[in-house]
Amino acid sequence: MASFANSLKTTADSVNEVLRRLLPDPEGPEARLLEAMSYSTLAGGKRLRAFLVTASADMFGVGRTSSLRVASAVEMIHTYSLVHDDLPCMDDDDVRRGEPALHIAFNEATAVLAGDALQARAFEILVGCETHPDPTVRCELVRSLAAACGCRGMVGGQMIDLEAEHENIQANDIIRLQQLKTGALIAFSCEAGAILGKVAKPLRQALHQYAHDLGLAFQIIDDLLDAEGDGSTLGKPVRKDSRRGKATLVSALGPERARTQARMLAQQASAHLDPFGEKADIMRAAAEFVISRDR
Amino acid sequence: MASFANSLKTTADSVNEVLRRLLPDPEGPEARLLEAMSYSTLAGGKRLRAFLVTASADMFGVGRTSSLRVASAVEMIHTYSLVHDDLPCMDDDDVRRGEPALHIAFNEATAVLAGDALQARAFEILVGCETHPDPTVRCELVRSLAAACGCRGMVGGQMIDLEAEHENIQANDIIRLQQLKTGALIAFSCEAGAILGKVAKPLRQALHQYAHDLGLAFQIIDDLLDAEGDGSTLGKPVRKDSRRGKATLVSALGPERARTQARMLAQQASAHLDPFGEKADIMRAAAEFVISRDR
Repeated sequence: MASFANSLKTTADSVNEVLRRLLPDPEGPEARLLEAMSYSTLAGGKRLRAFLVTASADMFGVGRTSSLRVASAVEMIHTYSLVHDDLPCMDDDDVRRGEPALHIAFNEATAVLAGDALQARAFEILVGCETHPDPTVRCELVRSLAAACGCRGMVGGQMIDLEAEHENIQANDIIRLQQLKTGALIAFSCEAGAILGKVAKPLRQALHQYAHDLGLAFQIIDDLLDAEGDGSTLGKPVRKDSRRGKATLVSALGPERARTQARMLAQQASAHLDPFGEKADIMRAAAEFVISRDR
Repeated sequence: MASFANSLKTTADSVNEVLRRLLPDPEGPEARLLEAMSYSTLAGGKRLRAFLVTASADMFGVGRTSSLRVASAVEMIHTYSLVHDDLPCMDDDDVRRGEPALHIAFNEATAVLAGDALQARAFEILVGCETHPDPTVRCELVRSLAAACGCRGMVGGQMIDLEAEHENIQANDIIRLQQLKTGALIAFSCEAGAILGKVAKPLRQALHQYAHDLGLAFQIIDDLLDAEGDGSTLGKPVRKDSRRGKATLVSALGPERARTQARMLAQQASAHLDPFGEKADIMRAAAEFVISRDR
């Protein structure tokens, strides 16, 4: 586990460096917007999505220049979604990654605009020649990320999540919600390596299935940490779900069954990696990490 | 002028039809989000940007399937920007195109998410094979639109606009602001035809200069209509700028000089179309239309 944590940290450092380069310099009359974009994007985080992009790309011998650009685009999308989710009209969270949320540190209008600009910048980066020499690959990256973060993906999931508050929803509906809200972007991250490596569909499909199970396991642990974790370790307020009367797999199954479910999902995720043999060991370690993390 | 109004109307009808097809059906648990996306996107509007895309593409013999898809993507970006601009934390407008703004008809959270999803959908459409057979062209469309609507384009302009309220800013700064806020997307619309037609850089540059002058003329008339127009004709509240103490070219130059400036800009815009000869007549008519419109 220690060696995996090191790999995760190394990737996080690399992606942070690339992000710093890819975020526009805070110059000109729009400087405040650019500062806001950097404030949230560089606020830390595990960079799990970035790790999944580079790890899957490494399996197919894709260069790090390519995979780190895609990883940066994914982290920008993830950041924009957190910034918008934290808004008063959405989840109304004042703290993010241990620091004031963007709309607190700046203001609401800036938070809306910074999120909007981060989304545009992510697509601009994906489509840049430096991302991949083959324009067909760059188009497929854009198509796939746009689908993953759009109305039938991440944003759709957030919509269902907001509507589900205070409603009595079933475990199956919760799974569907989470597949969209967090699963779709995690799936793109894992498939990005296959897209960059131009590998055959079945291998991409195997990564998709790995991501599916990994994403659900990740979300269950997230909800368990919210229900049982320590706010100061997590860097964000806890017990939010129960205060909002929000249904999660933890509330639907109880913490014990939920934890068992997460373990099963992580094992299942690793099994989908069989076609890749030893090359996928680090992605198996990622599945193990996801269920053993404490923040 | 009547014949131009007809052309504009015909293009609007075509793009509305394509938009209806390209907007996801309101099915599934995220249906409410999809309804919101359609509510704002199909609420009408002149579709001037869509017109500029198809008119510029027509000059280079580009098929309407291609240009209407790009036009739809542009209108989705334009719509998302209006939806977010209308939010209480931004311009706080309750009425848009004569109907309740999206955050009034639905709610604020839905307005944020619908805007986000429209942006993603626009890029997804641009990058689809049906938009153009050449993936290099599709990549250039994505790159160019992302730049036009991002932090150094539309969103950057909106940020400067918000910060400029109640500040005493000069005519030059107002021009810079408007070049970003409305000019960048208008420029993309005009250049889209050149990108789709794979024409030489100087011709694309001529369209860019046309768009630059057209965009400024358009904005001056917009500000004049706000200062002097009739809210019931416009379908939106008027005198907003002066109530907010917002600097515009109209407040900086006075209405007379502003109107003269708009006329000069429209003539200058048309002059940039000289390399295209008669083929560009309809785009010259567009410049004429922009300064003579009453809504």
